[in-house]
Amino acid sequence: MSTDRLEAFSDGVFAIAITLLVLLIRIPTPQQGRLIHSLAELWPSYAAYVVSFFTIGIIWVNHHAQFRQIERADRTLLFLNLLLLMWVSLLPFPTALVADFLRAGGDRVTATAVYSAVMEVMSLSFFLLWRHATRAGLLTAKLSSAAVWRLTRRNMVGQFAYLVAFAAAFLSAPLSLLICGAAALYYIYPGRQAAS
Amino acid sequence: MSTDRLEAFSDGVFAIAITLLVLLIRIPTPQQGRLIHSLAELWPSYAAYVVSFFTIGIIWVNHHAQFRQIERADRTLLFLNLLLLMWVSLLPFPTALVADFLRAGGDRVTATAVYSAVMEVMSLSFFLLWRHATRAGLLTAKLSSAAVWRLTRRNMVGQFAYLVAFAAAFLSAPLSLLICGAAALYYIYPGRQAAS
Amino acid sequence: MSTDRLEAFSDGVFAIAITLLVLLIRIPTPQQGRLIHSLAELWPSYAAYVVSFFTIGIIWVNHHAQFRQIERADRTLLFLNLLLLMWVSLLPFPTALVADFLRAGGDRVTATAVYSAVMEVMSLSFFLLWRHATRAGLLTAKLSSAAVWRLTRRNMVGQFAYLVAFAAAFLSAPLSLLICGAAALYYIYPGRQAAS
Amino acid sequence: MSTDRLEAFSDGVFAIAITLLVLLIRIPTPQQGRLIHSLAELWPSYAAYVVSFFTIGIIWVNHHAQFRQIERADRTLLFLNLLLLMWVSLLPFPTALVADFLRAGGDRVTATAVYSAVMEVMSLSFFLLWRHATRAGLLTAKLSSAAVWRLTRRNMVGQFAYLVAFAAAFLSAPLSLLICGAAALYYIYPGRQAAS
Repeated sequence: MSTDRLEAFSDGVFAIAITLLVLLIRIPTPQQGRLIHSLAELWPSYAAYVVSFFTIGIIWVNHHAQFRQIERADRTLLFLNLLLLMWVSLLPFPTALVADFLRAGGDRVTATAVYSAVMEVMSLSFFLLWRHATRAGLLTAKLSSAAVWRLTRRNMVGQFAYLVAFAAAFLSAPLSLLICGAAALYYIYPGRQAAS
Repeated sequence: MSTDRLEAFSDGVFAIAITLLVLLIRIPTPQQGRLIHSLAELWPSYAAYVVSFFTIGIIWVNHHAQFRQIERADRTLLFLNLLLLMWVSLLPFPTALVADFLRAGGDRVTATAVYSAVMEVMSLSFFLLWRHATRAGLLTAKLSSAAVWRLTRRNMVGQFAYLVAFAAAFLSAPLSLLICGAAALYYIYPGRQAAS
Repeated sequence: MSTDRLEAFSDGVFAIAITLLVLLIRIPTPQQGRLIHSLAELWPSYAAYVVSFFTIGIIWVNHHAQFRQIERADRTLLFLNLLLLMWVSLLPFPTALVADFLRAGGDRVTATAVYSAVMEVMSLSFFLLWRHATRAGLLTAKLSSAAVWRLTRRNMVGQFAYLVAFAAAFLSAPLSLLICGAAALYYIYPGRQAAS
Repeated sequence: MSTDRLEAFSDGVFAIAITLLVLLIRIPTPQQGRLIHSLAELWPSYAAYVVSFFTIGIIWVNHHAQFRQIERADRTLLFLNLLLLMWVSLLPFPTALVADFLRAGGDRVTATAVYSAVMEVMSLSFFLLWRHATRAGLLTAKLSSAAVWRLTRRNMVGQFAYLVAFAAAFLSAPLSLLICGAAALYYIYPGRQAAS
């Protein structure tokens, strides 16, 4: 099975999930008092929107890069790809939790812990997809074992970062969100080795 | 008429329907008490989300496989494909019913019965599409009658499973949902014969 | 300017608008009494959903057929196409009005009148797009003047049907909706001449 | 890196953002009194819908035109493109603010100021994308420096218009919205030079 339509379908899901994020910013109502104050109070929504937007954007970029190395798909790859897309599609939900609960007392721990946990399993799904492709011989012959290792290591950086973000949620919710944002930046500019 | 744009349009609808499912998970509000409890109480939303997500994903895979066998489209195929897409697009609605009513008393029967009924007519639309393509000579010449029969039989497994899920709704709502989930798994790993 | 990306963009908008319709079916809440009764009372939502779904589906089919005849795009065609897409994207709004107001007293006239009026201007935009393409020499050379006339006439059937549906709204709201549904069916099976 | 998938992904985001705008028109409820009056009171929603719809449509057109000149993508272009898409995806939010607050007293200044400010940063992101492509040598060799300058100047017209719209928000909210609408029209019909 070729990967063309798999990629097109995945691209569609990425594009929709990233665009749906805006629906989770609560629109202030005239009853809430001065609009300028209502807008200022929405800062956790903006922060969560930006982090989730760039995270989905980066996953799309890396999904694309990964599938240039994958020549064909089997049923398990299909299933693992659906699993990854399921977490990507779910992301607006924990994003909304962070947006709505970041300022509230004890619940901000729960909200950011859930958020970074979803990031972690999303990253893990990405890893499983990649590992299966490597082991089941679905890659193009051109890929050296050094390149396989480099891609694996890059993925592990994300998984580690999201674990740290999860732990940080219990100390400081904004810090946890910041770490998730930093992970997205890392994936855009992954340094000299990975870019080569 | 070629099937290229028909497939691209269908892919778009599948990708959007699958991504919209997340909007039907109700976001807890700070007024509802501890977030961790609100999140735990949402388990029917998660279960319905997962089953619907994989079901749409599998229908997409099978739609793709089917259209590799269909060479051209006539007006009736177009109409039957729209009918199938109408049920796929509707799926977020019964999914939301299951999510909101799975724990409530008598209504959980209604919610899961509606859910499995929509699955059943969706599967039936898929069958009608396939039967029309077979009878109207829209298939590529390469397909053997054994292959036609195998694809037909696979479709019938789904139709039977959804009928059982419908009946099961009156005994146990979670069991009914579980049968729908098992049908999705069957379609991913359809056994030696269908995969050949 | 080639029409390839214009078509791809339009396909995307059609696919999204058709899939968003489901979000406008109001999900019953446990507080509303027995679910089976709540679901039965939603019949105008189902009727409006089906008519709008097939109408967008048919516009997509005809847009596709039309653009096979259009060789290149100018700025005015681009603008007229955006105008058409604006009405298509708006359709979920009047669909929701019909769904929510079809059973209410005097307002059902307003709701179905608005619905058929949007259908009418959508059909008119389609006609303007087609007329501009014809007059500005954007068509492929292969199209005979008989074929141009046939396509123009088909479009006029829709415009006339939606005018009748608008007038019918003041007599009977369900009848008006039925006429809109019949127009969609006409476009799927346009008779011997248009199909040739 | 080729720009093909970058363009396809961007097209998807544009198509979804433009179609989601309709979800932000509030559907009148039967409790609000006569439907015809409720619909009339929604005029700011229609105005904001039309301006945002054509603005996203035009950005899509210009993004397309721009990427015909861009031969390949680097990591920074990818990031700047995501930044542009982030503002495009956000547009339904300020559109909803204008729709809900255009008639309210002092808050209409805030709503239209936010709206034109988002337009301004969106236009600025477009400029940064274009400038990076020019400076980093990502353009096709065919582009003359006169053409580069012409495209730059066109972009600046938009940036200036949105600044004027921002200032106008403090005088008259509808005027500010009108200027944003006029900017969209300018980009469709950019005059003899830019069209050449």
